Amino acid sequence: MEKIIVALDAMGGDYAPEQTVQGAVNAVNSSGEIKVILVGKQDLIQAELAKYEYNGDSIEVVHAEEIIDMGDVPTAAIKNKKDSSLVVAMRLVRDGKADAVVSAGSTGAILVGGQLVVGRLKGIKRPPLAPFVPTTKGFSLLIDCGANVDARPEHLVQFAQMGSIYYENVMGKKNPTVGLLNIGTEEEKGNQLVKDTKPLLKECKGINYIGSIESREIVRGAADVIVCEAFVGNIVLKFFEGLALTMFDSLKQGLLSSLRTKIGTLLVKPALKGLKKQFDTSSQGGAPLLGLKGLVVKAHGNSTCKEIEIAIKQCVSFKKQGINEKIKESICD
Amino acid sequence: MEKIIVALDAMGGDYAPEQTVQGAVNAVNSSGEIKVILVGKQDLIQAELAKYEYNGDSIEVVHAEEIIDMGDVPTAAIKNKKDSSLVVAMRLVRDGKADAVVSAGSTGAILVGGQLVVGRLKGIKRPPLAPFVPTTKGFSLLIDCGANVDARPEHLVQFAQMGSIYYENVMGKKNPTVGLLNIGTEEEKGNQLVKDTKPLLKECKGINYIGSIESREIVRGAADVIVCEAFVGNIVLKFFEGLALTMFDSLKQGLLSSLRTKIGTLLVKPALKGLKKQFDTSSQGGAPLLGLKGLVVKAHGNSTCKEIEIAIKQCVSFKKQGINEKIKESICD
Repeated sequence: MEKIIVALDAMGGDYAPEQTVQGAVNAVNSSGEIKVILVGKQDLIQAELAKYEYNGDSIEVVHAEEIIDMGDVPTAAIKNKKDSSLVVAMRLVRDGKADAVVSAGSTGAILVGGQLVVGRLKGIKRPPLAPFVPTTKGFSLLIDCGANVDARPEHLVQFAQMGSIYYENVMGKKNPTVGLLNIGTEEEKGNQLVKDTKPLLKECKGINYIGSIESREIVRGAADVIVCEAFVGNIVLKFFEGLALTMFDSLKQGLLSSLRTKIGTLLVKPALKGLKKQFDTSSQGGAPLLGLKGLVVKAHGNSTCKEIEIAIKQCVSFKKQGINEKIKESICD
Repeated sequence: MEKIIVALDAMGGDYAPEQTVQGAVNAVNSSGEIKVILVGKQDLIQAELAKYEYNGDSIEVVHAEEIIDMGDVPTAAIKNKKDSSLVVAMRLVRDGKADAVVSAGSTGAILVGGQLVVGRLKGIKRPPLAPFVPTTKGFSLLIDCGANVDARPEHLVQFAQMGSIYYENVMGKKNPTVGLLNIGTEEEKGNQLVKDTKPLLKECKGINYIGSIESREIVRGAADVIVCEAFVGNIVLKFFEGLALTMFDSLKQGLLSSLRTKIGTLLVKPALKGLKKQFDTSSQGGAPLLGLKGLVVKAHGNSTCKEIEIAIKQCVSFKKQGINEKIKESICD
């Protein structure tokens, strides 16, 4: 059996390279289908690797001297830091030496690098970043949450198409529903972009378009695939994260405020843990950048080894399901 | 002492006229400064009023035959239903017979009616809907959350100015901070609207502009006044509502799942109640539509008598603080 090869930007993220290397080790140790190429400062990576046991065939190290910082302007960073861990990892995908790249580094740099280094599939106008967000019914795909803002209607239609293919193959649900994020469900509601996109989505074949959905319905699982422009998607995603975390913090403070509530907390702990897990926006690992010639997965900046491991493993099903081939077939041809 | 006169759209909202009438009675019974004019179907209103005791001088009924439904297209409804409770209530403000109008009816109709019937202050380009949202530090004003989408940079600058005046006077905080809602704090981040608005806000005198803020920081109280375009503001507001409610529902389900957690729930109840109250987006009553010749307050569609009462009482401080006069002075002149 041929292994899926994942190039991991070992230097990207708040806890790199400790957590990135550990995540890679955990991924290869728990799945025989994966090989990880760790890209970054060789000495630092080797020092981390020395802490663990793993099958030597499953991990390779490729040196890269530079690191793209969160402060770097994305386009300049990709063009000027050609020997950065992110760019070197992306080149491995471009050159066919790896199937996928995973990075917890700068979102902007990943988006720019995905387009400039890995390259878009022919016919794809704009590659969207598509994370899963938790709902009471499971997960919905929020597409686009990237930094490529001010999209046009035809971009949103491609997001709907790519999102449907991705959702169907990763979640195993045939004909997933597609909703357009809007400020009301009535026909006249929406900004100009949404109004111009509606008729195109209605006409679009091969997707299960169900109309506009309001933001208050997202968490109730109103649609499997939620199409929106990146500025709005990014705002919703980060607001989700911020509100869920803040509510947990406030709940915690309240629960620790008296002896009575402290005792009660011991008894309700399983329910609290369940809630925290249910509304954890990072539980599904990374978000793919769809429509590229290879797979690019963006993991959260504060990913620990657990999220890095999930993001690496995501690449397996993406590759096995032939998602890129299906996107090419249905959109690009 | 002269009373503040509030025209209440008694027929607007999910629980009208029962809850609207009760809210009006509670408002006048608990504050000697208020007179409410109940506008709507006289027989229905009188039947509700008959249930309560109140000072007859504090409540008046003005008949209006029609009702604007949630399904009505706003502009058409305002133009064609001239004898609707909303339009009649707004005319009372226009004609100087009332200081303010409160409605829990269709947001779109309230926005259109505010502009067409009550009228904009001279120099105000677009009246924004500005609700308070709860944060861990208190409340932030999210301006604009209306349905007047696709704003221009100069509109956002006026939102910042009006929002500052409103916040300062209602919350009693001098020189409130103003943040621009964005997808990152770095200078190059943002969509075209945000990029074009940044330099204007930096130059704008009389506001305490602190730069871009990310959506994940809203709930942490990153800025007192959060400026955004209405499509985005509306999405954030409704998402807030939806996520907070859904998280409470899920928590409740988890807490009732076993005998152990049920016992614990009894002990932690005060903490849960506190949390629910803290993240209740409707706790501040209604949202004002700023920049009009009179005060227009939009209450939530599912307002009960409690929220209606708060919304009516809001009008008192708005009027007493002379917020409209201050807006005129600092922006319109």
